[in-house]
Amino acid sequence: MNTASPREFLNSTDVRVLEANSPSSDYIDVPASRPLRLDCDRLLAPFRIAYKTYGALNAAKSNAVLVAHALTGDQYAASQHPVTQKPGWWETMIGPGKPIDTDRFFVICPNVLGGCMGSTGPASINALTGKPWGLDFPVITIGDMVDAQVPLIDHLGIDQLFCVVGGSMGGMQVLEWAARHGPRVYTAVPIATAAWHSSQNIAFHEVGRQAVMADPDWRQGRYLELGTEPRNGLAVARMAAHITYLSEEALQRKFGRSLQDLAAKTFSFNADFQVESYLRHQGSTFVDRFDANSYLYITRAIDYFDLAAEHGDVLANAFKGTKTRFCVVSFTSDWLYPTRESREIVQALNAVAANVSFVEIESDKGHDAFLLEEPELFAAVRGFLNAAADKRGLNSGSGGR
Amino acid sequence: MNTASPREFLNSTDVRVLEANSPSSDYIDVPASRPLRLDCDRLLAPFRIAYKTYGALNAAKSNAVLVAHALTGDQYAASQHPVTQKPGWWETMIGPGKPIDTDRFFVICPNVLGGCMGSTGPASINALTGKPWGLDFPVITIGDMVDAQVPLIDHLGIDQLFCVVGGSMGGMQVLEWAARHGPRVYTAVPIATAAWHSSQNIAFHEVGRQAVMADPDWRQGRYLELGTEPRNGLAVARMAAHITYLSEEALQRKFGRSLQDLAAKTFSFNADFQVESYLRHQGSTFVDRFDANSYLYITRAIDYFDLAAEHGDVLANAFKGTKTRFCVVSFTSDWLYPTRESREIVQALNAVAANVSFVEIESDKGHDAFLLEEPELFAAVRGFLNAAADKRGLNSGSGGR
Repeated sequence: MNTASPREFLNSTDVRVLEANSPSSDYIDVPASRPLRLDCDRLLAPFRIAYKTYGALNAAKSNAVLVAHALTGDQYAASQHPVTQKPGWWETMIGPGKPIDTDRFFVICPNVLGGCMGSTGPASINALTGKPWGLDFPVITIGDMVDAQVPLIDHLGIDQLFCVVGGSMGGMQVLEWAARHGPRVYTAVPIATAAWHSSQNIAFHEVGRQAVMADPDWRQGRYLELGTEPRNGLAVARMAAHITYLSEEALQRKFGRSLQDLAAKTFSFNADFQVESYLRHQGSTFVDRFDANSYLYITRAIDYFDLAAEHGDVLANAFKGTKTRFCVVSFTSDWLYPTRESREIVQALNAVAANVSFVEIESDKGHDAFLLEEPELFAAVRGFLNAAADKRGLNSGSGGR
Repeated sequence: MNTASPREFLNSTDVRVLEANSPSSDYIDVPASRPLRLDCDRLLAPFRIAYKTYGALNAAKSNAVLVAHALTGDQYAASQHPVTQKPGWWETMIGPGKPIDTDRFFVICPNVLGGCMGSTGPASINALTGKPWGLDFPVITIGDMVDAQVPLIDHLGIDQLFCVVGGSMGGMQVLEWAARHGPRVYTAVPIATAAWHSSQNIAFHEVGRQAVMADPDWRQGRYLELGTEPRNGLAVARMAAHITYLSEEALQRKFGRSLQDLAAKTFSFNADFQVESYLRHQGSTFVDRFDANSYLYITRAIDYFDLAAEHGDVLANAFKGTKTRFCVVSFTSDWLYPTRESREIVQALNAVAANVSFVEIESDKGHDAFLLEEPELFAAVRGFLNAAADKRGLNSGSGGR
């Protein structure tokens, strides 16, 4: 499907609401006859997974790379976003000659279950009621997100993914792919992630959810039906979260205590400091492109994530007998998912004699480093993927043009 | 003044509103004839400073210790709080035989200008209008808070304070006392603080302010007049701030991923995790005892704090020629005011050959360690104060009974 031309005349919020039910990307509809059993033990069907692909699937269907997105990401990893009109969120990583080289690999990027860009989530119309799901949508897990992607891979006729790769919550999906569907994953690249969500991280998410739910325009989650939008609450949630994505050093270097277009302090509650103005901008642009209930559901899924707990409290059990080759990547200044949590993943993999390499990248950019210009990250991903692809006998790509 | 008995029949919010204008503690009223010139260049008068004292002032008036409180503290450092009925916030530190020994020292604890427990602030009635100040109250600074305490010291007939001590924003007041009124400060003990507020810390405060101001019950700051209360917004602000007061280790040790009274996850947005329930409790109890506009003003004062900027961008200039003896205290796991920021203070003091000792305390409790049971902190403060008091020839106290 292509973007219908009338969208050009809509504001970004209206386009977003439209995209939730009529994605301009590709999608598959899983029929009522093939329900998904969720971790909460409820059955979900029918449901839709919206996705984008980049590059071409080879004849052997052996060159597919599944890119899993983070909390507020979506399928537009390497193409223009239909709501914001901005470039894809991982264009630095995906494309011809890029580290995930679309001359060599076929990239699939699905919008997660619970998301708001076309995959079934709280902003989608519930076929049973004809109204948006809202809080009737089941609380999902990272494992559910992954299980909901399996029918997409089946639909594309792919037996084994060459790679599953992603950062942050994307990295959690990578781990669940390897744990739940190991034989279908040749290589796995979890970046800037952890096998469980810490108490502090749950706390930050809870602040964000309380901010959304405190907004009277949230209307107990029924805002889409009632024609309101919890913009203020969602903006505050985004602001709080955004701080955790950056390192203190990055904030200090970027903004310090610099004043915004001002010679001196205003002695008011205006955004005197650049960092205030930056945060307010982050909040207000986010609400244009994201659904508040999706934010609640996806943060909850992350909070619930604890791969060891799913395997008798022994993380290594999640990977017992794995044949997948892993490349675990962390950043030194990431305080959301500190390097030590990547080390725990590596130790668990070592404990089951998995094939694993670990790359700790020196960076002062904080958690968001995985989305930024980080030559060491690019080199690590490029090198790992190409070596594994050579080993698997895939045709070489463009050679890094 | 004593607590009037009718207060027993009021709820905590009503008591709080009453305390803002009729404090149950002592207070001084600075008359209209002695206006305070604020850093914003506005004049403030009349104004009130509410305070509590503990212990007895000696005949020479040489044993006074001014305790400066933190963001949400008040004058009830070592006595029951009239709103919450809880013990004082620094009872571990202040009292007979305690590190700040009231058998030896006369402790004065003022509520800061801009506060809401009796000192003039946005919740006070503006004499000119007969209505609460609200956002007509001038935006104040840490320096203004300190300058507003000078008339209190004058009123008590104290020429030189034996010590000014405080943690967090209290420590900033300590630094301003030493910088602006050095000859009146014999010793200074800034704890868990910094000479400037970092970009990340401004960002967290801005999230809190946006949460308050996004609450429709804030009513552009006129909620007291209009009979509403931005409870939800202020609770969210407190929750976000509270995370920064604890270390990740402390949160993990205290709560980990433990579930709250539950055998298993509820797959809902209830407070499944103990840390969620704890944070919600922190938010809701805070709004019972604190004024939302005071929160805006005091966070703003902290954001504006930059002692070097006030002295030609050279921190050492703030202390040039100082005769005050300093004891700078930091905690290893404090990420709000990391140890390196205390070191900057020490280096500036060293640069002007000040008498300074520096105590970095190994603790995993985070910023809040200064309020908690920390034997090393107690020993450091006790030792420093008693040695200085001996040197100054003060009668000894109870001997640490």
